[in-house]
Amino acid sequence: MASEWDTHTALTAAGDGLFGAEIDPGWVVGGGVNGGYLLGVVGTAIAEAVPAKPHPLSVSAYYLSAARPGGAQVSTRVLREGGAVATVSAELGQEGVTRISALATYGDLRALPDDVATTAEPPALPPVEECVPGSLAPEETRRVAPMMERFDLRFDPDCVGWATGAPSGRGHIQAWLRMVDGHDIDPVGLLMVCDALPPVTFDLGRPGWAPTLELTVHVRAVPAPGWLQVSHRTRNVAGGMFEEDCEVWDSAGRLVAQRRQLAMQPRG
Amino acid sequence: MASEWDTHTALTAAGDGLFGAEIDPGWVVGGGVNGGYLLGVVGTAIAEAVPAKPHPLSVSAYYLSAARPGGAQVSTRVLREGGAVATVSAELGQEGVTRISALATYGDLRALPDDVATTAEPPALPPVEECVPGSLAPEETRRVAPMMERFDLRFDPDCVGWATGAPSGRGHIQAWLRMVDGHDIDPVGLLMVCDALPPVTFDLGRPGWAPTLELTVHVRAVPAPGWLQVSHRTRNVAGGMFEEDCEVWDSAGRLVAQRRQLAMQPRG
Repeated sequence: MASEWDTHTALTAAGDGLFGAEIDPGWVVGGGVNGGYLLGVVGTAIAEAVPAKPHPLSVSAYYLSAARPGGAQVSTRVLREGGAVATVSAELGQEGVTRISALATYGDLRALPDDVATTAEPPALPPVEECVPGSLAPEETRRVAPMMERFDLRFDPDCVGWATGAPSGRGHIQAWLRMVDGHDIDPVGLLMVCDALPPVTFDLGRPGWAPTLELTVHVRAVPAPGWLQVSHRTRNVAGGMFEEDCEVWDSAGRLVAQRRQLAMQPRG
Repeated sequence: MASEWDTHTALTAAGDGLFGAEIDPGWVVGGGVNGGYLLGVVGTAIAEAVPAKPHPLSVSAYYLSAARPGGAQVSTRVLREGGAVATVSAELGQEGVTRISALATYGDLRALPDDVATTAEPPALPPVEECVPGSLAPEETRRVAPMMERFDLRFDPDCVGWATGAPSGRGHIQAWLRMVDGHDIDPVGLLMVCDALPPVTFDLGRPGWAPTLELTVHVRAVPAPGWLQVSHRTRNVAGGMFEEDCEVWDSAGRLVAQRRQLAMQPRG
């Protein structure tokens, strides 16, 4: 059976690097559509445009306008393909208006050398069963954020005070994540996972929408099956903006994706 | 008097967002041209394309082929301009071959709110006069890296073991930096500063060229006049690639730029 993710990112090839997509209402959050899901749609189109290079190594996205559920087009243009990688530009549009403009380099993660020398530390989350399920969110929250129904999220109890009006102020949120339908997440799916948690500004006492200006994901390995650990941190809130660093670790203890975004602080 | 930087990034407007540039041989390093300088040329063209938004907030660059000194063209296309920011795509080419493809959002850093809540710590460099001048590099190194003549670099003695065959293995390099002609560095110049130090892989005992796949700079404030502090770190060396995080702090103690790149490990 196809996974929900595969269904929601299914494309219709129209030739010349152009693809039709259907933005699923299941990814709405507040007044918009989750940026990670949209990037997953773009990332799927790029993978189809360069089939010999199935995996994103790096994707950079600039968010130009808010997408809506419904029809969309993704246009891709191969800038260079040769050797082990291909670089592609892509735009996601709706009714002639560009939503996202992206650049990406794709390759085959399985073909990379297997050296690993990571000094970064995994999130050190408590066991899944000791974490706070996203399903405990108030009915009202869940109604305006259908995207929450896509995942099984288990938040670190030490970083979830924002949910009860007591944010830690440290700028740190972390959680276990898997898809609610039990399907494992592939490298393109990591583009979505990197934007699945609430913005780290929730933990700074600033709930609300934090519009992304720019977001770059580096996918570093094919994730092992099972739960992923996802952390969000910020270290520089200034000038009405903040950077947010996301790390995704797989069940084998490997750092499989690093993502940084620059976003506007919620006005809240 | 014009600064050396202004001279080396001077453009000839050809209309329709197209600019002629002259890649100066003074930025050669090994067999190529410094990627930060090239990004500065691209960044200058973008600033000219959207004059009401003079400063880069975010620039993402994908490096497609190695540039050479000599003539170049920068084509810019405004994807969206409205409100406080403009998003622009740009390509730098030579003889019809694309060297760099970039996306950027520009604005006016002086117009941003003046809130600062940075938990990141400045590099903690020893005083300038206790650091190791780049001018002490061997004659042979300086001959293959004319770009070193552009700066006054003073390396943290604790992170410079790689220069004498004793890299620390921590993946950390940091230094004071100013331009050799004494001119202060502006926000576009920070695009170059973020790629001015040797790759952090030098400190991992892997000297040699580390080709950049992707590089994103977030410029967070107009730098105060005077010396800048620049640090490079890596935390995830894996699959033949590494991420490198660069921070630039100004003389007022402000974190003015954050840059991450994904690069290939030197074979050395």
